[in-house]
Amino acid sequence: MGALDGLRVVEGSAFVAAPLGGMTLAQLGADVIRFDNIGGGIDFHRWPETPDGHSLFWTGMNKGKRSLAVDVRSRDGQEIVTALITAPGPDCGVFLSNFPASGWLSDERLRARREDLIYVNILGNPDGGTAVDYTVNPASGFAYATGPRGGSLPTNHVLPAWDISTGMHAAVGLLAAERVRTRTGVGQFVSVSLADVAFTMVANLGYLAQAQVLGEARPPIGNDMYGAFGRDFPTADDRRVMVVAISLRQWQSLVDAVEIGEHLPAIERAFRVDLTKEGDRFRARDALAALIAPWLAERSLTAIARVFDKHGVCWGAYQTFDQLLNDDWRVSADANPVFRDIDQPGVGKVRVGGSPLAFSAIDRDDPRPAPVLGEHTEQILAEELGMSSSEIARLRDAGTVAGPA
Amino acid sequence: MGALDGLRVVEGSAFVAAPLGGMTLAQLGADVIRFDNIGGGIDFHRWPETPDGHSLFWTGMNKGKRSLAVDVRSRDGQEIVTALITAPGPDCGVFLSNFPASGWLSDERLRARREDLIYVNILGNPDGGTAVDYTVNPASGFAYATGPRGGSLPTNHVLPAWDISTGMHAAVGLLAAERVRTRTGVGQFVSVSLADVAFTMVANLGYLAQAQVLGEARPPIGNDMYGAFGRDFPTADDRRVMVVAISLRQWQSLVDAVEIGEHLPAIERAFRVDLTKEGDRFRARDALAALIAPWLAERSLTAIARVFDKHGVCWGAYQTFDQLLNDDWRVSADANPVFRDIDQPGVGKVRVGGSPLAFSAIDRDDPRPAPVLGEHTEQILAEELGMSSSEIARLRDAGTVAGPA
Repeated sequence: MGALDGLRVVEGSAFVAAPLGGMTLAQLGADVIRFDNIGGGIDFHRWPETPDGHSLFWTGMNKGKRSLAVDVRSRDGQEIVTALITAPGPDCGVFLSNFPASGWLSDERLRARREDLIYVNILGNPDGGTAVDYTVNPASGFAYATGPRGGSLPTNHVLPAWDISTGMHAAVGLLAAERVRTRTGVGQFVSVSLADVAFTMVANLGYLAQAQVLGEARPPIGNDMYGAFGRDFPTADDRRVMVVAISLRQWQSLVDAVEIGEHLPAIERAFRVDLTKEGDRFRARDALAALIAPWLAERSLTAIARVFDKHGVCWGAYQTFDQLLNDDWRVSADANPVFRDIDQPGVGKVRVGGSPLAFSAIDRDDPRPAPVLGEHTEQILAEELGMSSSEIARLRDAGTVAGPA
Repeated sequence: MGALDGLRVVEGSAFVAAPLGGMTLAQLGADVIRFDNIGGGIDFHRWPETPDGHSLFWTGMNKGKRSLAVDVRSRDGQEIVTALITAPGPDCGVFLSNFPASGWLSDERLRARREDLIYVNILGNPDGGTAVDYTVNPASGFAYATGPRGGSLPTNHVLPAWDISTGMHAAVGLLAAERVRTRTGVGQFVSVSLADVAFTMVANLGYLAQAQVLGEARPPIGNDMYGAFGRDFPTADDRRVMVVAISLRQWQSLVDAVEIGEHLPAIERAFRVDLTKEGDRFRARDALAALIAPWLAERSLTAIARVFDKHGVCWGAYQTFDQLLNDDWRVSADANPVFRDIDQPGVGKVRVGGSPLAFSAIDRDDPRPAPVLGEHTEQILAEELGMSSSEIARLRDAGTVAGPA
């Protein structure tokens, strides 16, 4: 059961954005059919991999989809995929892809087979040129605003944040286009580029305007929060914590927890600031941090957590991926219904998350594993394209399609 | 005109995720009404700000919405917002918020007024506890995987990536719930937490599985790409470029461009790698980078761009926000229809982006500015709630609502 039950999406994809867009829909109940070349596409062995070659990335990004393995260089293979993309029915005829929309996958060719097709295409640059998260992020300005104060070398983010945002935009665009088709019968081609997603967000967040209107380029400020009080501190037991005070209430909670209230009037006089103001707490942050640091340096993470939580301080401990997996209730399969340990074929037991969206009128399903490549080839050809078992056998013998290896 | 024309969404929000979710819908044509306390909510002066107090952040995040300024601590103000949220009509009755769903904004109270309400609520932690991007990211593991190789201190990302992903999830959840209501008449409460969005993504990308299945914690590797060849290099004119080769074709383009082909067999022998394999190019990356670096160090960015583009190399220059604004055609209002210079009241001329989604059957509208606080108060009370001008005057005189200052 899911909010998108019945919706059929065909996905031709690689890497992060398009597979994530498809998985977002699949985890809400859509029937997402991913087609890949026999033996796997370009992202089938993306690192990290198990010693025997199962990609933990690929299996993570394709959970709950069906897999069709097909030789898309062959005319018969192209016809199978085309028939699937343009299959009749009000919930079919939806295609999500980051492959070039040209040749047999051009909008013209596909739309000739189904006029009300919804075709969502993800690009790198808006002109169709190549761009990936790793080349868009350096251009975004963020690399020069990340890392230690005073640093002049750019620091890349590790999270493929622009890919993620692009995949989510693709899902939004697909649902919006499907809403139009349901109401008017009109299908369409929807395109979105990684660069447009990234750079509109730079503008949305005020960075472009800060350069344009104020003539200010935001420099790197370490782990400090910009425009309010927020900084990381070491603890007595060699952990680190991020402490944040945006609202006045959060600031008062922090002041009470670390018992620095009596010294604040002196700080206000010395730095000519009003610490009831968010921006002034940012301006005086080094002095404030110097007052706060000893309290944290004398206490263990456990002791800090107890006091901070009692006072309602907004804070968080730094964790490695391992600590997140093992120490944090929020990814525990026992404590959080979003997470489960599932058996992923070829990989074994692995902690995965379902959709982070919870719907009150729809029961949450447990997350499903990624398919084995070609796992649903026969099922799809028979049930969706109405092929006989002898036709399927002929295609398999000709190397046009393949079942699971 | 827009894909979501007609859809009415009431937004009660602050900071990044919920405002972004609402703006995503507004930029696709939805009528998004943001209500704020008179004088502005907690994010109304979020930095960066102009000298006279106009937030470049707030105006960036609220483009194309309507603004209602109302005293939500008063019973009359709460009744106005409640009536707006639960207004009749198939396209109304949709509420997006990151405020606590309690008291007068509880699901029970609102649903008593409209049973098929769609209520999308954004949380910090899945149990309703406080968490913000700045406390969730340290817990995600990414801070310990970001920054220079060998570094042991965590590096925060500056982009509020989890907020962005959460806002986009909220938009997807809202459209999915609206699709269910259109088909079945059933409304519902949809919740999504920042922590669930972040940590399911850590799992989706294979990081949790790498820790769980392989016992490996991903260390920081500077600006190197993981699992393939990608690194930043300095140029002769003090710029830096990111060079990426994921596919074999991209690798071959790079090898040809920087003319290192003759040396590769020696590298393969010395490091026992097969450079036709993506993972082996990652393993031998220091040696490969040492071969490539001199070619870039001897050339200007312009000269590099000419050769790289001729060969189809996947690459990008590092830019500051200022360079992005002034040097990159992808944010030029002349060259890219997504971007426009608009007049933002109180701020002046500012470069903004519209929706990054392009729909073939719907003309692109120019991006609209953010409203002045309370700009649409009178219009909304009159047209949406059917109030007379004397009623509106009474509410304004009582300080329950306010027009633009």
